[in-house]
Amino acid sequence: MKNIVTVGGGTGSYTVLMGLKELKDVSLCALVSMADNGGSTGVLRDELGVLPPGDVRQCLVALSEHSDIVRKLMNYRFSEGTLMGHSFGNILIAALEKVTGNFVRGVEIASEILNVKGKVIPITNDKAELSALLSDGTLVEGQVGVDLANFSSLGLKKIFYKNDVKLSENAIKTILKADFIIVGPGNYFSSVVPNLIVGDFKETLLKSKAKIILPVNLTNKHEHTKNWKVNDYVKNTEMYLGKPVDVILVNTEPPSPEQVERYKLEEGNDVLVEDDFDDKRIIREPLISHSFFSYDKVDARGSARSFIRHDSDKLAKCIDKIINK
Amino acid sequence: MKNIVTVGGGTGSYTVLMGLKELKDVSLCALVSMADNGGSTGVLRDELGVLPPGDVRQCLVALSEHSDIVRKLMNYRFSEGTLMGHSFGNILIAALEKVTGNFVRGVEIASEILNVKGKVIPITNDKAELSALLSDGTLVEGQVGVDLANFSSLGLKKIFYKNDVKLSENAIKTILKADFIIVGPGNYFSSVVPNLIVGDFKETLLKSKAKIILPVNLTNKHEHTKNWKVNDYVKNTEMYLGKPVDVILVNTEPPSPEQVERYKLEEGNDVLVEDDFDDKRIIREPLISHSFFSYDKVDARGSARSFIRHDSDKLAKCIDKIINK
Repeated sequence: MKNIVTVGGGTGSYTVLMGLKELKDVSLCALVSMADNGGSTGVLRDELGVLPPGDVRQCLVALSEHSDIVRKLMNYRFSEGTLMGHSFGNILIAALEKVTGNFVRGVEIASEILNVKGKVIPITNDKAELSALLSDGTLVEGQVGVDLANFSSLGLKKIFYKNDVKLSENAIKTILKADFIIVGPGNYFSSVVPNLIVGDFKETLLKSKAKIILPVNLTNKHEHTKNWKVNDYVKNTEMYLGKPVDVILVNTEPPSPEQVERYKLEEGNDVLVEDDFDDKRIIREPLISHSFFSYDKVDARGSARSFIRHDSDKLAKCIDKIINK
Repeated sequence: MKNIVTVGGGTGSYTVLMGLKELKDVSLCALVSMADNGGSTGVLRDELGVLPPGDVRQCLVALSEHSDIVRKLMNYRFSEGTLMGHSFGNILIAALEKVTGNFVRGVEIASEILNVKGKVIPITNDKAELSALLSDGTLVEGQVGVDLANFSSLGLKKIFYKNDVKLSENAIKTILKADFIIVGPGNYFSSVVPNLIVGDFKETLLKSKAKIILPVNLTNKHEHTKNWKVNDYVKNTEMYLGKPVDVILVNTEPPSPEQVERYKLEEGNDVLVEDDFDDKRIIREPLISHSFFSYDKVDARGSARSFIRHDSDKLAKCIDKIINK
């Protein structure tokens, strides 16, 4: 039984977990960013004072072995009345935090109700106020602000938490027990990095013997990682991790012309991450999804970027080979 | 295996089902009123166009064999923000109606999630607009209106649905298969009678061989049933049923002075239902609850009436004796 840990949040973690769930002889833990303050999640944070449910919900749904209808329920977003914009799953997680008095306990109960394979663990129990300092001295606050900020033209000096945000006890145990840690894929500065900059993450990772696997993003986000190549993802990630990654997964398959076309409208021509890196740690495989992105859109801020995705099964098979080598 | 059917809604059904759930060799079905249009339920009906979840929720919670925390979650009522006043369980049932496109299917899925013993069946699938015509010709609309109307001083001429409200297919099957039908207890004109006046109820009941058990309410509602005695409950119920009841359960135990005191403030001195009826169909037993009403208050319109209640276990033991005689 191998201990596999994913680090991320949102759709990227959803995609990788959906595939990993099908593997045999693995114990899965999803470490999830707690930085989200947008959409339904942001409203619940503000109004109820709860920790952000959105990214946790997506990981719970990915790992749920309940019926499809229950997974559809979790992602159902109300489109009318005072509940408009809220996803049901976010309301569930918020209510469970209120009822149990404890976000972590609430996530555990949600996991029981949803018959989750593995564990979903908040990276921190602290209220995480993500911030970014741009090269011109501008301070950007909140994950929504970070998500919208144009690092590509203004330059990113530092991404950090305004407050003291510590790794949760469960997250520490999980990292120390891990055999493999999969960092991403996902929105790099909004979903992946917010985990890596939590206090004690680097220190804990140094104590862990886990091999680190980096499935490199397929596309760049115009405002954040414009023109990034595989090497940029590796170097940046190693900087945040404080140690080298062990395996780099790079897709070899081009997206369909229709997929590329969609991106051109929103993100320009150079959206695909170029494979510029020559390194024996790289594994090159066809990893792209050719199916229409069928899972109910769960991110209110979702855009055309939804359409070039890793294929859950291809990614999982590739990871399976690595962990059983 | 005896088929036991309860007819009601709200706290009364909750109380009787909580006890019946513990009996052996019974198959339970709760037929539930769909007339509610108040509180959280009313807002969801208005805003989302769903059928009323509130009474169904209480029956689901009563029959749930899930952990206490899940039952607490179902009754959790948000106290802040845009979700204020909504109970989580109502939101769950409304979301399931939206996701499945069908209230009945939604209730079935909720039953699976909550690990419900038995079945909860809406008395009708039609949108039920409860109305009352008072003796002075005033028309009262909606369950909330009916609940507040003063029948005791103004006189009730007729309680009815403005629209065509028919018994659901499932409700018909349930009544025809029943060995025992328990009518009430509960808020008489707001929770019990709204079931009995659904189109085809009388006709279906006439075809059923079920014995009808009437646990007479312990207290009167000042505006609706002021000074009613056991005989009034029996006669009125038989009028709505179109046939005689077979067993009448009457409590013999006085409430505590503290319980009575609470009621005096809101309902006056004569709140207790007097046992004026001499009939061999009557079974007299101590049926009152002496425990503080511990179940989380689930009815936004709840009042001091909450505190003189049937004891779930005593009621169930009494019913157990009847069905096994």
